[in-house]
Amino acid sequence: MSHISLCCTLCGASHAADMTTLRCGECASPLEVRYGRAEPEGKESRPGAPTGPSVPLPMHDPTKTVSLGQGNTPCVELASLAGVLGIGRLFAKLEMFNPTGSFKDRGSAVMMSMANELGAIEVVEDSSGNAGASVAAYAARAGIKVHVFAPANAPAAKIGQIKIYGAEAHLIEGSREAATAAAVEFCAERRLVYASHNLSPYFIEGTKTFAYEVAQQLARVPLQHLVVPVGNGSLYIGAWKGFRELQEAGYAVEMPRLHCIQSRAAMPIAAAYRGEGWSPDPDASTVAGGIAAATPPRKQQILDVLRVTDGVALEVGDRDILRWQRLLADREGVYGEPTSAAALAGLEVLVLRGDVGAGDSVLVPITGSGLKDAPPA
Amino acid sequence: MSHISLCCTLCGASHAADMTTLRCGECASPLEVRYGRAEPEGKESRPGAPTGPSVPLPMHDPTKTVSLGQGNTPCVELASLAGVLGIGRLFAKLEMFNPTGSFKDRGSAVMMSMANELGAIEVVEDSSGNAGASVAAYAARAGIKVHVFAPANAPAAKIGQIKIYGAEAHLIEGSREAATAAAVEFCAERRLVYASHNLSPYFIEGTKTFAYEVAQQLARVPLQHLVVPVGNGSLYIGAWKGFRELQEAGYAVEMPRLHCIQSRAAMPIAAAYRGEGWSPDPDASTVAGGIAAATPPRKQQILDVLRVTDGVALEVGDRDILRWQRLLADREGVYGEPTSAAALAGLEVLVLRGDVGAGDSVLVPITGSGLKDAPPA
Repeated sequence: MSHISLCCTLCGASHAADMTTLRCGECASPLEVRYGRAEPEGKESRPGAPTGPSVPLPMHDPTKTVSLGQGNTPCVELASLAGVLGIGRLFAKLEMFNPTGSFKDRGSAVMMSMANELGAIEVVEDSSGNAGASVAAYAARAGIKVHVFAPANAPAAKIGQIKIYGAEAHLIEGSREAATAAAVEFCAERRLVYASHNLSPYFIEGTKTFAYEVAQQLARVPLQHLVVPVGNGSLYIGAWKGFRELQEAGYAVEMPRLHCIQSRAAMPIAAAYRGEGWSPDPDASTVAGGIAAATPPRKQQILDVLRVTDGVALEVGDRDILRWQRLLADREGVYGEPTSAAALAGLEVLVLRGDVGAGDSVLVPITGSGLKDAPPA
Repeated sequence: MSHISLCCTLCGASHAADMTTLRCGECASPLEVRYGRAEPEGKESRPGAPTGPSVPLPMHDPTKTVSLGQGNTPCVELASLAGVLGIGRLFAKLEMFNPTGSFKDRGSAVMMSMANELGAIEVVEDSSGNAGASVAAYAARAGIKVHVFAPANAPAAKIGQIKIYGAEAHLIEGSREAATAAAVEFCAERRLVYASHNLSPYFIEGTKTFAYEVAQQLARVPLQHLVVPVGNGSLYIGAWKGFRELQEAGYAVEMPRLHCIQSRAAMPIAAAYRGEGWSPDPDASTVAGGIAAATPPRKQQILDVLRVTDGVALEVGDRDILRWQRLLADREGVYGEPTSAAALAGLEVLVLRGDVGAGDSVLVPITGSGLKDAPPA
């Protein structure tokens, strides 16, 4: 019998855990994984984490687990940038140290392990690039064929990466949403599994490991703020779920304020947070391709996390993003992709607004490698 | 008083540890670090390595240590490729999980920490790309200005990476050796510190941590072979020094056979190993830019390690390198740069020759990320 079920994030209806149920049968909202026991089983160590709690995960069969060594990324202090910003302490968790160079590998590892357990042999994904490359790598490792639908204007390095893993790349003209629509249609026609990193509840189970690691790495630092670049929000929601699980399991972990940074070109969350209307401008573009999502399927969940953690959502422009990308490399030796620099540009605004104080400690995830999305030399 | 001295790798003459002595005053051979005590101090744990030995390192002042979270890279099993090759077990240590995407970060961390301790404010490095980006990142972190001399034909992504860290890139027409000559001349003119990753004995102290991690990660696997792509040999020599130190400190570690794989375009070690003459062809090129070194300064040391570990040196061609790069991505989900695939192409030859047997266990380092040196999409 399975130790998990899929629970609607809005109405709470429960569904059996399989690979094809992506939305609630009652209200069509996205789902999340619930574990049968109220607490994670035991508090024994996991490898590489001698003193930390075990992470509840949805997999049943260890022989089907697909791993490329994801997670356990370093957390480094950015003392020079903390000085520039005038805050107490600033930390960066280097998610670019993942197998395909982005945090998405945490989610892909769990999602593709579940696909492998459940016998999938051919799956479909849509992605602006990072998630596509990540799912392609884990599919290659599992021997699963994958079709990746991506916007035709995604960075060449990301498309090249998707292809070298042996995935079939389908390049779709138009918006990010056009790629999603094409993927959904293709799935229906061919009767394939839609391994959507934005909808699969298993993907979030992978990204939540981020919070388990932060809780251990910064165990002695009172962390007040986590500032996350948000497109579809899989890291944002995962981080929150991880902290919440730790608290529910009885660990002494403070929930930081979870702030949400978007690009001015795609700011549905920031607008909704302020109670404003927003609709996508088809001519708008951004250097932060990883957060260019106009219609995030988990929008309501993101707004809920903002509310319960007292987070702020705001948008930043490309000029500030590129300035912070350069500062991060030049002052700290960390070369993140523009999307990850959006968090720092947003942090600057949070400091100016007084939301982050002079003595506060802040963590930003460096979501992806600068090599994946290189600016013109 | 310092706990280290610099010892000639040929005549054994001892020199005081500073940042400017790169060759023996007696015989001009390269130097290596020796520790004052016969054994590493104590056997207590180091962070993240609960059961392993401590690593002797040359730094004196922890406040001057420059870190970006390098090392502690995953070691994953490549079961599918082991099947293709017909060997017992195959492991890959994913050195692309380092801060700038290559194993060089291990060396740069120690070398730049020593430069920082010794008060350097402006240093010079020469590199085909990976080491330049790595030194540039650590220099940025330490607030040290760095000039990187690189061949003008180095991959654009690598040059872009060097520049974004704020380093001054000097692009030199001609061979890899022309970049070295220009760097040496520039150092002499400006009286700057030559932080050469190929000559600095501190760089090897960083790369040796690779072996300490392997000994721990594969503690239960009898590892017979380590197959390393070799240009100037900093990882090859470092790995050997690490295993040797562990043995000298009394740990039960078997020394694997250390094989050395070169590119047909630059094969001074492979030729010398067979007792053949070799001279560089100015028109020869290779996709494996990281090992395109015609005159490695530590050539004699590499030949010594081959002899004492019963290693084999051989060369491989670009077609086989690219074939193995694709197999590694497509079968295992690991996207390494062509240089790292040279080790797999070489392993195939070692198996065909009978040097690696059907029941043997083999480790290859995936020295750098495929994103750094992307093939045409």
